[in-house]
Amino acid sequence: MSYGQYGPPRHQGYAAPPPPTYGNQGYYQQQQQARQGPQVPAGADPQLWSYFTAVDADRSGAISVTELQQALVNGNWSKFDLDTVKMLMSIFDTDRSGTINFTEFAGLWKYISDWQNVFRHFDRDRSGSIEGRELAEALRSFGYNLSPPLLALIEAKYASEPVSGYGPPPGITFDRFVRACVAVKTLTEAFQRVDTDRDGWVQINYEQFMSIVLSAP
Amino acid sequence: MSYGQYGPPRHQGYAAPPPPTYGNQGYYQQQQQARQGPQVPAGADPQLWSYFTAVDADRSGAISVTELQQALVNGNWSKFDLDTVKMLMSIFDTDRSGTINFTEFAGLWKYISDWQNVFRHFDRDRSGSIEGRELAEALRSFGYNLSPPLLALIEAKYASEPVSGYGPPPGITFDRFVRACVAVKTLTEAFQRVDTDRDGWVQINYEQFMSIVLSAP
Ligand SMILES: [Ca+2]
Ligand SMILES: [Ca+2]
Ligand SMILES: [Ca+2]
Ligand SMILES: [Ca+2]
Repeated sequence: MSYGQYGPPRHQGYAAPPPPTYGNQGYYQQQQQARQGPQVPAGADPQLWSYFTAVDADRSGAISVTELQQALVNGNWSKFDLDTVKMLMSIFDTDRSGTINFTEFAGLWKYISDWQNVFRHFDRDRSGSIEGRELAEALRSFGYNLSPPLLALIEAKYASEPVSGYGPPPGITFDRFVRACVAVKTLTEAFQRVDTDRDGWVQINYEQFMSIVLSAP
Repeated sequence: MSYGQYGPPRHQGYAAPPPPTYGNQGYYQQQQQARQGPQVPAGADPQLWSYFTAVDADRSGAISVTELQQALVNGNWSKFDLDTVKMLMSIFDTDRSGTINFTEFAGLWKYISDWQNVFRHFDRDRSGSIEGRELAEALRSFGYNLSPPLLALIEAKYASEPVSGYGPPPGITFDRFVRACVAVKTLTEAFQRVDTDRDGWVQINYEQFMSIVLSAP
């Protein structure tokens, strides 16, 4: 109760929560190299392999940042932001090679597919973007019961257009929605690590504060 | 001395500091409408007017977000990030019309020109991007004597490519450099407003913390 009316999760909500893991460990820790070449490697999912080779445009056997940016588009065909691509690389390029091999790709693909399901689930009006009430509901389902002012800040910061005084507020496209959710999770968990007595207050210095903020995507 | 060896500005450095104003007030508070039409309005700088009409591709008399994104490119011809364009709109679209009129454009143009001079000044090796030591020097000249770990976080977060374990760390392009500097300024000032006794420590709750972080560009 110490976080008051609003606050971070006290329990897990939403039956199939997204996997907003952020940091050095992805889903696949094995450094095992995917076999190169056009034929499906033994044991590999042929469908997944066909996606991988489609994204690996130059057939180098690994997906570069540029290839990833070319492949990843939102529902409205806008490209993913560089910051989202960097976030995905930081999660899934587990061997820090600067490219995504087939093993790493399996984790990346599952992550994006899971998030696409989450996005479609909360895009209640099928507008292709997440607007105010949809955002509140999504975050609440992940356990973040944020205050209306915080929700308004998130909506404005991650909107895919500047917010003007006219017309309806712009919505949040897929890739920015994922980044928003991961940022809320990362920042909340960092706050909670400092808030050891769980009273919703922390005492932190400038260095800690900046370090937490700059570590979020 | 309370911020220790590193910390936010205690004095103004760099003879011609950039104007990282962020918030509702831009340089031009006058809501005066620029006259529309192809001829130079009375009293307008003809050179600035020609820039304005070049960016205002559809000759509507005001620059839309799309027109601004088309016009703003980095030294390597990459487009400005949406987040940088949104930051610029939040500073210079002072009447919240969602577009930039000629009066607002004068402020925007000066701001970008000033930052370009700052960028060129600190891009010591003329690489077209700001790398580690250049970043440290730029921020120090603005009065931010940040610790090496914080500088490394800023360098990675605002780099124009993901950081891999191989090769030199990627640099920061112009638009992301401006956003990095404005973010450091915004976050530091927000921290200092809470740190009323200036001892470098603050006691804040979850709501304040998230609100500060989500208000930075
Ligand atoms: Ca890799
Ligand atoms: Ca929607
Ligand atoms: Ca305006
Ligand atoms: Ca340089």
